[in-house]
Amino acid sequence: MNKIEARIGQALSHIRERHPLIHHITNLVVMNDTANVTLHLGALPVMAYATEEVAEMVSGADALILNVGTLTPSLVESMIVAGRTANERGVPIILDPVGAGATTLRTESSLRLLEELEVAVLRGNGGEIASLSEASGVSKAWGLRGGGAVRGVESVAGGDDPVALGRAMAREYDLTVAITGKRDIVSDGQRTLGVDNGHRWLTTITGSGCMATTAVAAFAAVEEDHLVAAVGGLACFGLAGELAAQKAEGPASFKVALLDQIYGLTADELAEEARITAVEAGSS
Amino acid sequence: MNKIEARIGQALSHIRERHPLIHHITNLVVMNDTANVTLHLGALPVMAYATEEVAEMVSGADALILNVGTLTPSLVESMIVAGRTANERGVPIILDPVGAGATTLRTESSLRLLEELEVAVLRGNGGEIASLSEASGVSKAWGLRGGGAVRGVESVAGGDDPVALGRAMAREYDLTVAITGKRDIVSDGQRTLGVDNGHRWLTTITGSGCMATTAVAAFAAVEEDHLVAAVGGLACFGLAGELAAQKAEGPASFKVALLDQIYGLTADELAEEARITAVEAGSS
Amino acid sequence: MNKIEARIGQALSHIRERHPLIHHITNLVVMNDTANVTLHLGALPVMAYATEEVAEMVSGADALILNVGTLTPSLVESMIVAGRTANERGVPIILDPVGAGATTLRTESSLRLLEELEVAVLRGNGGEIASLSEASGVSKAWGLRGGGAVRGVESVAGGDDPVALGRAMAREYDLTVAITGKRDIVSDGQRTLGVDNGHRWLTTITGSGCMATTAVAAFAAVEEDHLVAAVGGLACFGLAGELAAQKAEGPASFKVALLDQIYGLTADELAEEARITAVEAGSS
Repeated sequence: MNKIEARIGQALSHIRERHPLIHHITNLVVMNDTANVTLHLGALPVMAYATEEVAEMVSGADALILNVGTLTPSLVESMIVAGRTANERGVPIILDPVGAGATTLRTESSLRLLEELEVAVLRGNGGEIASLSEASGVSKAWGLRGGGAVRGVESVAGGDDPVALGRAMAREYDLTVAITGKRDIVSDGQRTLGVDNGHRWLTTITGSGCMATTAVAAFAAVEEDHLVAAVGGLACFGLAGELAAQKAEGPASFKVALLDQIYGLTADELAEEARITAVEAGSS
Repeated sequence: MNKIEARIGQALSHIRERHPLIHHITNLVVMNDTANVTLHLGALPVMAYATEEVAEMVSGADALILNVGTLTPSLVESMIVAGRTANERGVPIILDPVGAGATTLRTESSLRLLEELEVAVLRGNGGEIASLSEASGVSKAWGLRGGGAVRGVESVAGGDDPVALGRAMAREYDLTVAITGKRDIVSDGQRTLGVDNGHRWLTTITGSGCMATTAVAAFAAVEEDHLVAAVGGLACFGLAGELAAQKAEGPASFKVALLDQIYGLTADELAEEARITAVEAGSS
Repeated sequence: MNKIEARIGQALSHIRERHPLIHHITNLVVMNDTANVTLHLGALPVMAYATEEVAEMVSGADALILNVGTLTPSLVESMIVAGRTANERGVPIILDPVGAGATTLRTESSLRLLEELEVAVLRGNGGEIASLSEASGVSKAWGLRGGGAVRGVESVAGGDDPVALGRAMAREYDLTVAITGKRDIVSDGQRTLGVDNGHRWLTTITGSGCMATTAVAAFAAVEEDHLVAAVGGLACFGLAGELAAQKAEGPASFKVALLDQIYGLTADELAEEARITAVEAGSS
């Protein structure tokens, strides 16, 4: 067991001891599931999005999730207000650009949040991150070939090599990028890691990306190294998926088992079963 | 196995091969379930309702669902914007008038959508369709006796003979009408079919009507004959309910099994087990 | 079996015979679950919050739930409109002050609803009720020591003795107060009862408080004595939790079993297994 695996096991223990509060400003489709994922991990969820209360709520929180699924312009304003307070207070922000690349509203709003706020972790699928990279000019600046495509909220083309893409976005925006897929790629611009936990059943249910983001946020609430936090959240969520697959008779019984496993997963199991590898561009 | 059963089996295969994108503008209660039903059928769901993005989103979609549960006036405006683009692009619109008959807002908004947009399929319960028929004057024009009643979102009285009602509404609005109940009645004004798949457990969970609408939309995304699409979606959803009932220990375990079965149902099973009959007025 | 246990068993029978309509103006996280709890109990749920339709909808309802989770100022206005009509029509209002104490918006809005409307039952956790008691000056007026604290939507400190707190709030606002926790305390200012049904699994899922509120509302729709209704709803919900715990392999399988049990619970089981005790201040 290497150092990072031990550290993410420890982070899971810390979540369960400290019960960090995770403030979600998120889409309407997944709220119940992401609230439950938060609780089952050992953290406390709160969903609050009124401009009138987000600053106050995030002041008492340990992480802030901004998720742009089912976005409206007024929700973007609430995200900016909450995000500024989070930045002032040192509360890490996790951005999930659901559907970026599918509509201008989602692409532009995600970029605005990246520009105006100090985001700790950007977690999306290949199509979303590639779309943001292209729309922001990062792809061009870093000589990436582009070609990301999103249909609805589904990544249909990740475009570039995810290692190069993640590293470029991480350096440009000074944050950790987590690109989820068959192999998850996590980069802070210097270090790039692959996470091989997960199961194909996760692609059969709605909101698995959003739930992974919630896991990342819970880890970021207790672990200051955001690369470690992102890897920890993704390994934890993916491992729960592997264990749940043994009980699945279909996607809905899989989801029940997934949530049960997130609750039951021990820190030791996570440290033992996390599959984390250092990766180089072109290797994933 | 008759021609229509073979055709709906084929449609299910097409959904799984083509992964059509189903854009939902729908109520807040059922979003997670209808997104999952979409995915499990083999299609892709997206929920988006901001006026700023609905036209762009629906431009890339293969069907559009307008569902008036938890309606607001601004949501109606988004539906009109999305619906106009859908009509221009030939994207079929499926309208679910949840709670029409219970409040003026829902009745009037449903009628406005029927008047201003070219709707492909109108799917509701007996009380909802009868209420729309009465409020629009169709009942009177066609000599139907009226008497539809809705309590909250529950049909308490379907009013007219559903075959006569469906046929009248279908002819008046030039669309396919699907009235769900113990026997589902589907009419395009010329042809009227009954679908006898289903199970009483479906009445014990919230959103079963909305999920049936989603199934109809997925079929309409790949099948140009809207009567066939409506019958296919309802037979598919009802059959999954029959199979799920064998595993139910209550409504929640039924729902888990229902979603599992929607995912697992094969095109051959659907073609074999669909129970579709031509019906005449007064026969249902 | 005492008189109150028989009476709450009878109330459950009445819910199943009369199918009362429960109008929810509630938060976005729990809507699907609370709609299902309503249906499984034998009542009819409707979720409607547009200012344009809430008065009309509540006019046909048998109870109104006002739940301030994911609150916005415009939602408060809808609650006031719906609440006034409910008061005019004699429809009992059940208020769930989710997250009161965590933000000014939630605390002040909950107090406004308590001041401007005639609320039948106020159902919250210890931290929420204590926070309202302090913010309203009731704690001070009644010589309570205060100290309630809420983190997100989680009670971290109930502050005062719940019996004294419940009684003070009940007398001050002339309603029934239900403070849920390991032992639920219900007081109408004169009579104070403890309910000992429940299970620790209920604390591992999101929305268990909101679901308990829904159960209270269904009972209040058929039982005029609001103390009896509150005790009945809480005993019913807690007992279903106890029965479900036998099948739980984790929080999600517990939730499935919980909903199944709510549906399956008989009036006789409720009357036999409800654990209700008269309590005095300092005894809980």
